[in-house]
Amino acid sequence: MSLQPSTASTSIILTGDRPTGPLHLGHYVGSLRNRVTYQDQYRQFIMLADAQALTDNMDDIGKVHRNVVEVALDYLAVGIDPAKSTILIQSQIPELTELTFYYLNLVTVARLERNPTIKQEIVLRGFERDIPAGFMTYPVSQAADISAFKASIVPVGEDQIPMIEQCNEIVRKFNRGAGRDILVECKAIVPEVGRLPGIDGKAKMSKSLGNTINLGATADEIRAAVKMVYTDPLHLKVSDPGHVEGNVAFLYLDAFDTDKEGLAEMKAHYQRGGLGDSVVKKRLEGILQDLLAPIRARREELAKDKGHVMQILKEGTYKAREVAAQTTDEVRKALGLSYF
Amino acid sequence: MSLQPSTASTSIILTGDRPTGPLHLGHYVGSLRNRVTYQDQYRQFIMLADAQALTDNMDDIGKVHRNVVEVALDYLAVGIDPAKSTILIQSQIPELTELTFYYLNLVTVARLERNPTIKQEIVLRGFERDIPAGFMTYPVSQAADISAFKASIVPVGEDQIPMIEQCNEIVRKFNRGAGRDILVECKAIVPEVGRLPGIDGKAKMSKSLGNTINLGATADEIRAAVKMVYTDPLHLKVSDPGHVEGNVAFLYLDAFDTDKEGLAEMKAHYQRGGLGDSVVKKRLEGILQDLLAPIRARREELAKDKGHVMQILKEGTYKAREVAAQTTDEVRKALGLSYF
Repeated sequence: MSLQPSTASTSIILTGDRPTGPLHLGHYVGSLRNRVTYQDQYRQFIMLADAQALTDNMDDIGKVHRNVVEVALDYLAVGIDPAKSTILIQSQIPELTELTFYYLNLVTVARLERNPTIKQEIVLRGFERDIPAGFMTYPVSQAADISAFKASIVPVGEDQIPMIEQCNEIVRKFNRGAGRDILVECKAIVPEVGRLPGIDGKAKMSKSLGNTINLGATADEIRAAVKMVYTDPLHLKVSDPGHVEGNVAFLYLDAFDTDKEGLAEMKAHYQRGGLGDSVVKKRLEGILQDLLAPIRARREELAKDKGHVMQILKEGTYKAREVAAQTTDEVRKALGLSYF
Repeated sequence: MSLQPSTASTSIILTGDRPTGPLHLGHYVGSLRNRVTYQDQYRQFIMLADAQALTDNMDDIGKVHRNVVEVALDYLAVGIDPAKSTILIQSQIPELTELTFYYLNLVTVARLERNPTIKQEIVLRGFERDIPAGFMTYPVSQAADISAFKASIVPVGEDQIPMIEQCNEIVRKFNRGAGRDILVECKAIVPEVGRLPGIDGKAKMSKSLGNTINLGATADEIRAAVKMVYTDPLHLKVSDPGHVEGNVAFLYLDAFDTDKEGLAEMKAHYQRGGLGDSVVKKRLEGILQDLLAPIRARREELAKDKGHVMQILKEGTYKAREVAAQTTDEVRKALGLSYF
């Protein structure tokens, strides 16, 4: 039984992750902690995008399967509540592929090739001319996901905004063709706190860069990671003035330290000299240990009964499928593809 | 209940049509009459490709819906027997879109752009840069259709052979990834009698060229069409020697006249002069009237109860869906997308 409000006036939000590895602090800051808030305000669907993950993981499909339950554990551990949020597995809702199929007729190849997100990711993944067709068309698949649940709000990073525009183009084109508003346009919301850098100071915390602190990290792993956190390479002696810009220790404190006044003082001290990195890192470590200890504990507890987690995913997926099936039925009828 | 043999040793054949208009003599010669033979030799699936028809009919989707029952009437009228052949409506088998979705990851955009059939049809349809993504990817959708039914034989025109090659590339790539032969490679069979020209002498009998004789044509329509059949523009007087090459009246006689000896004599007479077009056309008209009269009669009879036709399509579709669902389940499992 779901406890979340589901009246027509409740806005619907769709969010999710590709289950390709454990979630980390970057996910926590960028999305997970917002979802815990959103679930009290919206009807929230959280999608484990395993089918989409295949678009660039066809060579290691076992990885995607394994990570579905791991990511679900991360969700539950941070406080996503299945009684408030509907967690679903994308591949188990074939209606999403059916919508993708129809929407492919509403987008030109040239339009997909112009998509800035796709262009950027093609470079990032080194695809060049060997772009899998599934990768090129994944904005269409995203449009299917969003519109299947009639989501009006989609939290995304700045770089994903073109995907939302593509979705709305499809929605408008479909509705125009149908002569009525069957699908719903959506709005992107970009989280206030931007992307968390990796512990090495690289722009992005990313599993593939090996610069993450995972949500399930042990106390020792957290300690070791904080030791490696990139600070100010010019700050050699304690007495030297230090820089807080680009200093990952302070960037993390900005993201996690709730004592903003204490943090401001510490920054000032660091900048005028006389404050060693070890003191800053000690503060950071304490905060991260405090943040992650209960998440880790809940995660370990939940991991003892993965059958229960799968049951949660099953129920969420079935509930979500009903919604997607309803939308797909409306789409099929509008296309004149209803017979029996 | 189906009467066709369905043992593992029976070869499976997939064939079908885009339901965009009534079928005509070109379809009869190129495929329909073969299907009547095939249904006694193979397990035959005949697909009404309504979803595929959308790829270039998004502007007139009602047309596709309307023609599903019309094409089914043509099938039944020529002797396709639902007890022997499984007639199905593509859009009602969502598993086909699911397979398409997965297969898109096995094909590169560059490979699709090189497909000669697609290249040719892009020119034919005047798409240029505005190719709908669904059109570019339709070879992948065809691969889904063929492999869903594990068809090993696919009757196609010469120009469609690249589509079969594309399908087999996908099948091999998938099986290689899965580490076992889940999907089945298929062989194209090209009908002995090639494409029937239009009554105007154009290379192709085609609804859009307005040069067809439809299977449901009335006696008067047949008579009028035969009168317009293109013959030899240099054969002005009866006494003139005439050409049989490119002479549509003789090309049609080649296709439909079972009295090969009588036809050879008539050709010789025409070539040496002294035989008027009207005599040739009289012979042709008689043959076409004899061929089409029982088809038209059966068609009219069946058209009185379209509910019955829809019932046949429903049963065929449900039976076909079971097969496609089984294959899709195997594919999903091989991709590690099976959870509950």
